[in-house]
Amino acid sequence: MPDCTFCKIVQGELPSSKIFEDEDILAFLDITPINPGHTLIIPKLHYDDLRDMSDPLIGRLFSAAAELAPAICRGVGAKDFNLGMNNGMDAGQVVFHAHAHIMPRFPDDGLELWSGKKYAEGEQERVHEKIMKEMK
Amino acid sequence: MPDCTFCKIVQGELPSSKIFEDEDILAFLDITPINPGHTLIIPKLHYDDLRDMSDPLIGRLFSAAAELAPAICRGVGAKDFNLGMNNGMDAGQVVFHAHAHIMPRFPDDGLELWSGKKYAEGEQERVHEKIMKEMK
Repeated sequence: MPDCTFCKIVQGELPSSKIFEDEDILAFLDITPINPGHTLIIPKLHYDDLRDMSDPLIGRLFSAAAELAPAICRGVGAKDFNLGMNNGMDAGQVVFHAHAHIMPRFPDDGLELWSGKKYAEGEQERVHEKIMKEMK
Repeated sequence: MPDCTFCKIVQGELPSSKIFEDEDILAFLDITPINPGHTLIIPKLHYDDLRDMSDPLIGRLFSAAAELAPAICRGVGAKDFNLGMNNGMDAGQVVFHAHAHIMPRFPDDGLELWSGKKYAEGEQERVHEKIMKEMK
């Protein structure tokens, strides 16, 4: 895609700090990390988000994330990490070339996960029913 | 694992609103959702987190997430979703049975992604070098 930042990184038209590359995927440092070592892992071909990717490519991308994350964490002295993927504008996706985030975490780094709240009486059942109708 | 909440859900010892189940994985509604329809997808066998899972199982779990997410979103009237997986205590993992979150999102739902900041001069190169040493 001519105007896609990540396609340009894949093509070498924009620089990146590459962590890993093979035939199908590329991993490189996010330039505005939430913590040092924050890495993006992308399919080399252009897909908008997770919904457009084939099962084998999804498997390859997340297996590679599992394989890379421990080395990334060791490199920055972190033990644990969040894996995230924002799919679509309403989910905060900014670059519309599918990418997963590997985010090393430190105790007391101040980053907080969203907190959920219990469903109102009967709401969980109604939501479940609506989803199950869409599954057919 | 005898004291694992998610193993108990798999075994039917604890109730859940199941969205999908096959031989290897189970998806059910999170009971404290960040938004209605927030779904957890887990391997039926006990693994602590992503790092303990085999490549085929990782592929199966995330392919299923990609397949389920659009129906979940339609069910609650959302267009987009975040996919997340917290690996380890420092990353906010609470139940230590590997699980990915499918989180439907709505415009103006008030949920904000973490914001990153640029590396200091030379820091990105130093971090990259340290990670690459751990990759060997």
